[in-house]
Amino acid sequence: MADKLIIFDTTLRDGEQSPGASMTREEKLRIARQLERLKVDVIEAGFAASSNGDFACVQAIARAIKDSTVCSLARADDRDISRAAEALKDAARARIHTFIATSPLHMEKKLRMTPDEVYEQAKLAVRFARNLTDDVEFSTEDGSRSELDFVCRVIEAAIKEGATTINVPDTVGYAIPELYGQFIKTLREKVPNSDKAIWSVHCHNDLGLAVANSLAGVMVGGARQIECAINGLGERAGNCALEEVVMAVKTRRDYFGLDVGIDAAQIVPASKMVSHTTGFVIQPNKAVVGANAFAHASGIHQDGVLKARDTYEIMRAQDVGWSANKIVLGKLSGRNAFKLRLQELGVMLESEGEIMAAFARFKELADRKSEIFDEDILALVNDESMTAEKEQYGFVSLAQHSETGEMPHAHIVFTVGGKEVHGQSDGNGPVDASLKAIESHVRSGAEMVLYSVNAISGSTESQGEVTVRLQNSGRVVNGVGADPDIVVASAKAYLSALNKLHGKAERVAAQG
Amino acid sequence: MADKLIIFDTTLRDGEQSPGASMTREEKLRIARQLERLKVDVIEAGFAASSNGDFACVQAIARAIKDSTVCSLARADDRDISRAAEALKDAARARIHTFIATSPLHMEKKLRMTPDEVYEQAKLAVRFARNLTDDVEFSTEDGSRSELDFVCRVIEAAIKEGATTINVPDTVGYAIPELYGQFIKTLREKVPNSDKAIWSVHCHNDLGLAVANSLAGVMVGGARQIECAINGLGERAGNCALEEVVMAVKTRRDYFGLDVGIDAAQIVPASKMVSHTTGFVIQPNKAVVGANAFAHASGIHQDGVLKARDTYEIMRAQDVGWSANKIVLGKLSGRNAFKLRLQELGVMLESEGEIMAAFARFKELADRKSEIFDEDILALVNDESMTAEKEQYGFVSLAQHSETGEMPHAHIVFTVGGKEVHGQSDGNGPVDASLKAIESHVRSGAEMVLYSVNAISGSTESQGEVTVRLQNSGRVVNGVGADPDIVVASAKAYLSALNKLHGKAERVAAQG
Repeated sequence: MADKLIIFDTTLRDGEQSPGASMTREEKLRIARQLERLKVDVIEAGFAASSNGDFACVQAIARAIKDSTVCSLARADDRDISRAAEALKDAARARIHTFIATSPLHMEKKLRMTPDEVYEQAKLAVRFARNLTDDVEFSTEDGSRSELDFVCRVIEAAIKEGATTINVPDTVGYAIPELYGQFIKTLREKVPNSDKAIWSVHCHNDLGLAVANSLAGVMVGGARQIECAINGLGERAGNCALEEVVMAVKTRRDYFGLDVGIDAAQIVPASKMVSHTTGFVIQPNKAVVGANAFAHASGIHQDGVLKARDTYEIMRAQDVGWSANKIVLGKLSGRNAFKLRLQELGVMLESEGEIMAAFARFKELADRKSEIFDEDILALVNDESMTAEKEQYGFVSLAQHSETGEMPHAHIVFTVGGKEVHGQSDGNGPVDASLKAIESHVRSGAEMVLYSVNAISGSTESQGEVTVRLQNSGRVVNGVGADPDIVVASAKAYLSALNKLHGKAERVAAQG
Repeated sequence: MADKLIIFDTTLRDGEQSPGASMTREEKLRIARQLERLKVDVIEAGFAASSNGDFACVQAIARAIKDSTVCSLARADDRDISRAAEALKDAARARIHTFIATSPLHMEKKLRMTPDEVYEQAKLAVRFARNLTDDVEFSTEDGSRSELDFVCRVIEAAIKEGATTINVPDTVGYAIPELYGQFIKTLREKVPNSDKAIWSVHCHNDLGLAVANSLAGVMVGGARQIECAINGLGERAGNCALEEVVMAVKTRRDYFGLDVGIDAAQIVPASKMVSHTTGFVIQPNKAVVGANAFAHASGIHQDGVLKARDTYEIMRAQDVGWSANKIVLGKLSGRNAFKLRLQELGVMLESEGEIMAAFARFKELADRKSEIFDEDILALVNDESMTAEKEQYGFVSLAQHSETGEMPHAHIVFTVGGKEVHGQSDGNGPVDASLKAIESHVRSGAEMVLYSVNAISGSTESQGEVTVRLQNSGRVVNGVGADPDIVVASAKAYLSALNKLHGKAERVAAQG
């Protein structure tokens, strides 16, 4: 029987730490449910001790997810580990993931601790965690740049204290496949009790080698868990991309000979959900999930492909969840059809009230747009202005005009804490004028660091999905808004980002 | 002395073949000049025999470039090779790159030739090419899936006939680093005259392994040329990304021990130019050239980074050409300052008339926008509506209005073959109405397959850069338009795409 390769997804933890990728509790829950449908083995749901918001996210995911193990990150101290355990209390299967840096550079410059202090703290942390749960993962941060004998000593102690998974991250993306695979192999040979734990790899993509390093860690090093994220989301150049590493192992099963439990047909839906939620675009030439990844999906048929598909294709688009953009609903569709479609798309709204609100928006959209695609529905529920009644700011209406030779002008009506206000302004363009009209009341002081628009199904007849990224006092948030009128979509996105700035608390940053 | 690793850039050939990435002659020339500044060793400028347009591009690049070798692709037949040689006639250094498929699948299904026929044709092609130039590269298409003994036979013959570079592509992105490196090594050991040629790798990224495969081809296989493209542009999931493979070799010189001639500080400018020109966005978490690739560049300072930069960074942002977004010019800047800045940005306009036109647009922009960034200037010259006098369609003016509860409406004035026409229409949004107003006259029948907007320097005060991708009768073109008013930018982008559809001839598709 082939060995099982454990897929540990960190989209909601390391992925979310990416500047600008922060998500709300509802967004994280929706993605966690999609990860469960994707059949990932472990979902790293967050870093419970970093903030009350993160604690609530981990707790909500622990309560909602049944099939995957739910994991929380925790620094190697009792307080962090207690918070993780508390957040995970209701999980069907829980894992505490504790870590400490082991490289000379990190110990000296970041932790300001001696190796012996690090060793002791690692030991005590794993012991403490193991008293709270059976499933404990221990990571040696910046492991690939750590001194071999010292890492061996720390890992041996961690396993002795009961760590069931040992993760050796390439935190800074500095590794080379041959060297990294060999490093894991050597560690496993040198640590006397290495066979008592499952070994894991966690690679960053700074040099474009995260997938290859992970696979070398498995094939050369003998690791049996890969930590990865949807769309390769994560700090800097991101983590190993789940879709790439999984499809490499599946497509080249002849070489890898490993079983992965992933349901590949859920890959593209997961990728689109993460991209829509974070506003992180996927480049067309991205492997597996990019719009051009399967040439024929973009309408271009090459001579070779027409003669025999496998001349140029090693995977089938439908196997990873690409499907034709289907018209699914129209003006006459009823509430039950809408609800069912939401379920099929993996969208779980919290209450009947939310479903009603989404349905009302769906009907409004169907009045303006004859063909409603799956992506329109996803945009509809992703559009956080939907939940405006709970929020500080809500969109009401907008009028704008621009004409060559005149200053563009906008007049907006929106709610602040439930009360309607009017704002108007000129601007460099109609979008600029609309956002300035909002700011004429709000005066947030936020700086816009990103503005982008994508038409949801290619043409400008479809809805435009606008992402606005605001930065204020070191906090970065994304707002997403969708509307057939992109000026309106921009105003909605801006209000949504202001809501997030309004609601968001500071948190502690972690690395992996 | 360390071995030299030859960097062969195929952005303008394999990259441009990516659906939607086609470029005009002026665009290709501009990118070729940037590649020369980047100090790539070989620029694959196109596939001269594929169309008259491609021939003209290769010829123009061959005439303009002095420091890099200029290369044209050619199928393994006399006509293709003659066309390549003719297009390259004026190059300071020219290379003909001829190829034929050697895998059983490709020979049988695509070429419908026997292995012996392929062998003969390869031999004759290299012989013919070598009579026309001293620098001949020969590629075994789908080489990584070819039968070992047969490939050896073909390569031996190609070297005997005078091929100076032997390239073994992983055409479908199926390779695994260990296997691919070993395959190249075995080939080099088995082919008796293998030391008479430089060996080359050309990897696609379908499984996220293009960089690792290329590096294994070099370190395990002994190849000394890597074929790659800016931003990993290319068919499907694209080619090996130049920026990643180059920075891997440079950052880990301790391991690779190879010299590369690339001026890394030109990487980010090249990446932005290619992205702007093709409309292919770069995802934020893209290695080296993504907006988040260097955490601190996005304004987020982590505790660790503040204490010591190299705790989390293995490269410096400025080493690859990231720089603060500087205000470079304003309202009072003169024509000479503008011209100088264009030169510094690597923009070479063809004539004084073009410089004057660009300067006029710059002044117009400076009237509306107080701070002009480098990216604004690049957008200004990328905006093809600038050269409207030569084109079929040109933007004149636009008025549009939208208001919640009413149908958005637009009235546009544009030129068709120099004559002004008026169009007006309602639409789902102001952009949709504007494009429908254009189509009310043009009736192109084109389908819009992509619409996206990026604010050029983050905020909506800056110009919006719109990319529109149109498809008509199997041809796919991009139009790019920039304006502080995104509705106007959209109309300009649409007209620019229509111009390309109007001007573009069919061509033959090639694979590599």
